[in-house]
Amino acid sequence: MKRTTAAQPEVATLFIAASELDSNLYYATKFVAPDPFIYMEVKGERLLVMSDLEMDRAKSQASVDRVLSYSELEKKAKSNGTKEPSTVDIVHVILREAKIRQLLVPANFPFIHATRLQELGYSMKPKRDPFYERRVVKTAEEVRCIEAAQRATEEAVAAAHATLKLATIRGEELWLDGEVLTSERIKKLINVKLMERDCVAQHTIVAGGEQACDPHHEGTGPLPANRSIIFDVFPRSANSRYFADMSRTVIRGTASPELKRLYQTVKDAQEEAITKVKDGADGMKIHQGICDRFEKAGYKTGLVDGRMQGYFHGTGHGVGLDIHEAPRISRTGSLLQEGHVVTVEPGLYYPGLGAVRIEDMVLVTSDGCRNLTDFPKTFELG
Amino acid sequence: MKRTTAAQPEVATLFIAASELDSNLYYATKFVAPDPFIYMEVKGERLLVMSDLEMDRAKSQASVDRVLSYSELEKKAKSNGTKEPSTVDIVHVILREAKIRQLLVPANFPFIHATRLQELGYSMKPKRDPFYERRVVKTAEEVRCIEAAQRATEEAVAAAHATLKLATIRGEELWLDGEVLTSERIKKLINVKLMERDCVAQHTIVAGGEQACDPHHEGTGPLPANRSIIFDVFPRSANSRYFADMSRTVIRGTASPELKRLYQTVKDAQEEAITKVKDGADGMKIHQGICDRFEKAGYKTGLVDGRMQGYFHGTGHGVGLDIHEAPRISRTGSLLQEGHVVTVEPGLYYPGLGAVRIEDMVLVTSDGCRNLTDFPKTFELG
Repeated sequence: MKRTTAAQPEVATLFIAASELDSNLYYATKFVAPDPFIYMEVKGERLLVMSDLEMDRAKSQASVDRVLSYSELEKKAKSNGTKEPSTVDIVHVILREAKIRQLLVPANFPFIHATRLQELGYSMKPKRDPFYERRVVKTAEEVRCIEAAQRATEEAVAAAHATLKLATIRGEELWLDGEVLTSERIKKLINVKLMERDCVAQHTIVAGGEQACDPHHEGTGPLPANRSIIFDVFPRSANSRYFADMSRTVIRGTASPELKRLYQTVKDAQEEAITKVKDGADGMKIHQGICDRFEKAGYKTGLVDGRMQGYFHGTGHGVGLDIHEAPRISRTGSLLQEGHVVTVEPGLYYPGLGAVRIEDMVLVTSDGCRNLTDFPKTFELG
Repeated sequence: MKRTTAAQPEVATLFIAASELDSNLYYATKFVAPDPFIYMEVKGERLLVMSDLEMDRAKSQASVDRVLSYSELEKKAKSNGTKEPSTVDIVHVILREAKIRQLLVPANFPFIHATRLQELGYSMKPKRDPFYERRVVKTAEEVRCIEAAQRATEEAVAAAHATLKLATIRGEELWLDGEVLTSERIKKLINVKLMERDCVAQHTIVAGGEQACDPHHEGTGPLPANRSIIFDVFPRSANSRYFADMSRTVIRGTASPELKRLYQTVKDAQEEAITKVKDGADGMKIHQGICDRFEKAGYKTGLVDGRMQGYFHGTGHGVGLDIHEAPRISRTGSLLQEGHVVTVEPGLYYPGLGAVRIEDMVLVTSDGCRNLTDFPKTFELG
């Protein structure tokens, strides 16, 4: 006779994903693989199921309790009568032995697997990010990893600015080594410098003039003289897998009084926002504070000729194993908590005039924050 | 009165994903964004829904019919009575207007959104990869992108081999510039060279001796003399987003007769397998052919002392916007088709003796294949 208890039925956690693309799974296992694999938390035990190919590496690298062999479980599924076992059938073998019928899965759990598990009678509960709450609160070691990536970022941007300073101004263009200086050349300089420091930079932004008025425009072609140029650099450490993130805006040549005022407005707003960051602060209010400040200074936000201008992105986001993660300092903002690492990056974008964005990355503390960024905010490079 | 017809009810295609991580979505839209967005195919029209932040960029870069504003649709959802509209509520606004109740979604569609859509009464059908069948068959332009990334890969590996040749053999170690030559140094050389060519290399493998016996070990510490060293390099072009993939095995110093035989066996098997690749060929049979050949040559596959040795990975995979995509040349292999780009990469791994893997990337043609790899297969670097 089966024993029954009044206790809560047991729930297992299940991931089927590639940890190369899924940071929750990497966080849970500390194992990077390019192809999807099974990870489960069953009755307090953390299990990986690995192909023959990844078995050895998983055993030596993954921070789990046990690594099971996919091919062994496949044999078991076949002996249970499943002709061509799928990934879900392998999960089923494990759960049947553990007598578990309820699963907690991440919000992005693949629908096709969920459907099949439901058909097998499992009850599935998706959980939104942060799937692991502790992932949002960085340990001292995680902060060190982020800071190391940030140091490399600063070196690369410093080298880029030094190159920009070497350029000659010819009318509205910048020239260096007998050719027009382009966004592509400066981006490559940054990306190569970062790779030399084992950091992988993608989608680095070096965008000037009108291009910079689109906040995610990466920049292409000649860089303008006498107009603002936005640098936004956010590499991932190939070793630790943590990101860093920094933006600076600079100009070569003459800044108009309007552009100088735009810069100063963003800089003041950014620095005031940083003073508001602390444990318990409301990200939504910090964001709204910047919006109000810009409005009061006469910088309107909205559609003009079908194009957004003013301030139309969030003020900040968490940084960690993802470049954008919880918490948010935005109109859907979160309460900040000691140990969060967040960016503070207001910007103003006006086609015709130009654009400014300034971004630091800070660690939230009990009574304020520690700025993890160590880089000057100089507008005019001279 | 509503008109009814006997025709099939209309089905819309829906993605909610970040195209930075989801190659089907990038393939459909040619638009890269780091955060999830909505893409739909509704009544023959291809729609993007974008935040204010990405609106401009999407309009100029995305290959879709129309870019809708998330914030406009959010207002509409609110005026329909939804207090705090979620992403799914935005989808619902569009589908309600189009009077569509059935959705086709990719297999990896997020379970949490699927659940909510089902609650709203939608019928959801997940489709496995290849979601877009035409993605598997490369156009001439796609092949050019892959070949460009491959040329950069060859240059980088050539530079690495040249550096390896410069090293001095001291006992079982390789020395260069007064220090022991490490995997890390050679990997960085390759990754930096590739970044100089706008290719992003991650998880580059330069693994020698025992490390190479684990096929995905990236390599760490001193590179051995007199033992085989596997190079596996698979960067992604930052411009085209297509991958390339190549493996070579080399040795500095003296190769034992056993190691030479291991190398020759893998090379012969690889080259024979390439002669079998053509439109209509069965990937499973090509893979089995290599397994049989290895067995006949006395190279057994299986667990020895709890560790896999022999040949325990697939022979090949498709290469494109993902590094591993359809088709497969493996025990679950696919029928090859003109226009597929696949790797052919057998290997043998014997702790104690060493490991060899040789990989080319080929384009399947009607009567054979065109080798996209142009790099010598030289074992002894001298």
